[in-house]
Amino acid sequence: MIKDFNFYAPTRVVFGGQAEDKIGQLVANYGGTRVLLHYGGGSAERSGLLGVVRQQLTQAGIAWCELGGVVPNPLLSKVREGIDLCRRERVDFILAVGGGSVIDSSKAIGYGVPYPGDVWDFWDGKAVPQACLPIGAVLTIPAAGSEMSSSCVITNDDGLLKRGVNSDLCRCRFAVMNPARTYTLPPYQTAAGATDIMMHTMERYFSKYEDMTLTDAISEALLRTVRDAAMVVLEHPEDYRHRAQIMWAGSLAHNDLTECGTEKDFATHRLEHELSALFGVTHGAGLAALWPSWARYVKAKHLARFVQFAVNVMGVTNDFTHPEETAEAGIRAIESFYRQIGMPTSIHELLGRDITDDEIETLVDKCSRGGTITVGAMEVLNAADMRAIYQMAR
Amino acid sequence: MIKDFNFYAPTRVVFGGQAEDKIGQLVANYGGTRVLLHYGGGSAERSGLLGVVRQQLTQAGIAWCELGGVVPNPLLSKVREGIDLCRRERVDFILAVGGGSVIDSSKAIGYGVPYPGDVWDFWDGKAVPQACLPIGAVLTIPAAGSEMSSSCVITNDDGLLKRGVNSDLCRCRFAVMNPARTYTLPPYQTAAGATDIMMHTMERYFSKYEDMTLTDAISEALLRTVRDAAMVVLEHPEDYRHRAQIMWAGSLAHNDLTECGTEKDFATHRLEHELSALFGVTHGAGLAALWPSWARYVKAKHLARFVQFAVNVMGVTNDFTHPEETAEAGIRAIESFYRQIGMPTSIHELLGRDITDDEIETLVDKCSRGGTITVGAMEVLNAADMRAIYQMAR
Repeated sequence: MIKDFNFYAPTRVVFGGQAEDKIGQLVANYGGTRVLLHYGGGSAERSGLLGVVRQQLTQAGIAWCELGGVVPNPLLSKVREGIDLCRRERVDFILAVGGGSVIDSSKAIGYGVPYPGDVWDFWDGKAVPQACLPIGAVLTIPAAGSEMSSSCVITNDDGLLKRGVNSDLCRCRFAVMNPARTYTLPPYQTAAGATDIMMHTMERYFSKYEDMTLTDAISEALLRTVRDAAMVVLEHPEDYRHRAQIMWAGSLAHNDLTECGTEKDFATHRLEHELSALFGVTHGAGLAALWPSWARYVKAKHLARFVQFAVNVMGVTNDFTHPEETAEAGIRAIESFYRQIGMPTSIHELLGRDITDDEIETLVDKCSRGGTITVGAMEVLNAADMRAIYQMAR
Repeated sequence: MIKDFNFYAPTRVVFGGQAEDKIGQLVANYGGTRVLLHYGGGSAERSGLLGVVRQQLTQAGIAWCELGGVVPNPLLSKVREGIDLCRRERVDFILAVGGGSVIDSSKAIGYGVPYPGDVWDFWDGKAVPQACLPIGAVLTIPAAGSEMSSSCVITNDDGLLKRGVNSDLCRCRFAVMNPARTYTLPPYQTAAGATDIMMHTMERYFSKYEDMTLTDAISEALLRTVRDAAMVVLEHPEDYRHRAQIMWAGSLAHNDLTECGTEKDFATHRLEHELSALFGVTHGAGLAALWPSWARYVKAKHLARFVQFAVNVMGVTNDFTHPEETAEAGIRAIESFYRQIGMPTSIHELLGRDITDDEIETLVDKCSRGGTITVGAMEVLNAADMRAIYQMAR
C-alpha cells in the first residue's frame, strides 16, 4: 500500500558558503520591517554570526529588537517573553538564528502574537493555530530540521511537559544555511544532530505502508550519506563537503520528503521527549538511547522492513534463511555506529547513572498522559508497551 | 566542489487515488474565482477527467471558461489565443489538465496576460517575466515535471523555434496527481515520459560539481526506481504502485531537488528541442536518440562520473583497471534499456528514416542561434560540437 500524501515545502533555501550575504534582502522580500532577532546562548555572538546578521538588517534598513537566551528543549516561559516583546515592539517578522530550539521558540512566539488566548492552548489541544507571524531561519545546528518542517516542540516549565504541534502556518519563509557555520559545533552536538536527522528519516521509513519504493530509496540514500558524513566530520570538523551533506540532509529528513507515501511513526520521538523534558538531555542522544530497544520490541511483526534496513542502510549481508538474525544484525550495526560517534545506546549511558523504577513510571505516565493516549503508527504503543521499552533501554 | 544553491519548491502536491476530490477546494483556496480550464486533445474528455474537474469547479461555485487543443510541443499561437480569452473573461486563475505541454502553455498564458508587450519577448530574451497568473495543475502525463518546475518551453509556430524560460513566478500553486490517471497512456508515451524523467535527473547528475554526495545518492535512487518501474508498467499498465513511482519521480526530477549542489547541463535537452521543433517528435524519444552520442562525445574528460553512473545506476560491474570500458558499458546498458522500453537510440530510429546533412545544418544553426551561443555546462558545446553529436547520433 502507498499512503495518499500531501507534500508542501514552501521554504526558500539559500545554501552555501556566502549564504549570509542574502539575509537582509530575504527579510525585506518577505515583508519584514520590524524584526525580532531571536537566538540562544553565546555561541552565535562569539562566532560573529550575530554581528553579520545585525549588519545585514542595518544595511537593508530594517528595524529590530532582540531576545536571546533560548535553551535546548526551549521553554514556554521564554516564548511568553517573546510574545510580550513582539506585541510591545509591533514586530512583523521573526528571524531565528540558531538550531531547532531557537526556530521552535520563534514558531511558538509567531503563533502566540496574533492569538488572544494563552499560547499553551495549542500544545494542550485546546486550540488550533489560525495564524503565525512570518519566520526566517539562519541555521547553525543541523539536527531538528525545524527550518523546513511544520513542527514546533515546546517544553512547559510548569510540569516539564514537552509537546509538539504541527501546522503549515509556521513553516519558515526562508532558511539560510552555511555549512561552515557548523565547524565549531562540539562533537557531542554534531553526533546528536546526525542521530536526530537519521531518526527523522527512520521514523518515516519504518511504516506499515511499504510500497513507496522511491521514498524508501531516497531515505536509504540519506541515511547512508549522513552515517558516513558523521564519521568524517567528527575526525575533520572543518570538512565543508561532509558538513554540507549533514546540513542539507537535516532539512530533507524533516520536510516530509521522506514521508511521501509512508506514514510517520514517531514513537521513539514521543518516548524521548519525556526523557529530555525530565532530565534535560540532548534530544538526539536520547533517541540513540531508546531506538534499539524500540526496534527489538517491535521487529518480530515487521521483519522484512528491518531486514531491508539492515541490508540497504547498514550494509549487513542478507542471511536469507534467518531474517530475524539479519534484522538483529542491523540493529547491532547501528548501535555500533552510535558508539563510534559517542552516542549512548541505553538510558544508563545517557544519564550516567541507573534510572529508577519511579522515574520510568513518571515517563510512562507523561508519555501516555496518564494512560489515556497511545503513540506510534507502524506499531501502536500503549502505556504497558512504553514501560516495556523504557525498561529494555534502561 | 559543491555549488551554492537555492532550493524553492512551493507547489502543494496532492497525491493519491482520490486526489481529484480536492480540486475545487484547492482552486478556491488559491483565490481562483474565474478560471481558465486549459487542456489538450480528447483523452482527458474521454477518460472522464474533465467531467470530474468541471464538477469540482461547479461544486465550489467557481466560474470558468475553457480552451482545449494544446498539442505536444505547445505552440505560441495557442498561447496567444489563451491570453486573449483570459483578458476577455477576466480570468484570475489557470487550471491546467494534462501533461507538460498543457502546463507550459498555461504558464505562458499566465505570463502573457499581465504583460503589455508581445509574450514571445520572454523567449526572445527581450524581457523578463515580472508577474504570472496563478496556476494549478491536474497531471495526466508524468514526464516533463512542469507541475513543480520553474521552466516553460514554447514553440513559436513562425520558424519552429522551441525555447525555454525559467522563473519562480510560474511555479504551480498546486499539483494534483493520481497515478491511476496514467493507466491509459500509450506505451510509447509511458516510455518517453520515463526517459524524460531520467534525463532531467541525468542532466543534473553529470556536472562538474561532483561533491554533493547526498544529491548524487538521491539521483541514483530516482534513476534506478524509474528504470525498474518503467519496465513493470509497460508489462502491467494498471500497476498503481509502479505508476506512482514514475509519477512522483517526474516531479522530483525537475523541481531542482536533484540539482542541489550540482549544476544543470541540459545540453541534450537543448539539442533535442531542435529535433522536436523541426520534426514534431516526442521529446523523451528525442532525448533517448541523442544522449548516448552526447555521452560518448564528452565522456573521456569525465570518466569518473560516467563510471559512477555505470556502477551505481546501471548495475555495471566496475572494471577498475579500465574505467573507459566501465563507462562505455554504462552507456551500452542504458541503450539496451531504451530498446527494451521501445525508445530509439539514434535519429534514424527516431524518425524512421535517415536525416540529411542539410537537416543537421538546420539543427546546428538553430541550436547555436547561428553560431552565436553555446549549450551545456559540464562540457560547453559550440556549433562544431553540436554538429559532431548530431552526426554521431544520426
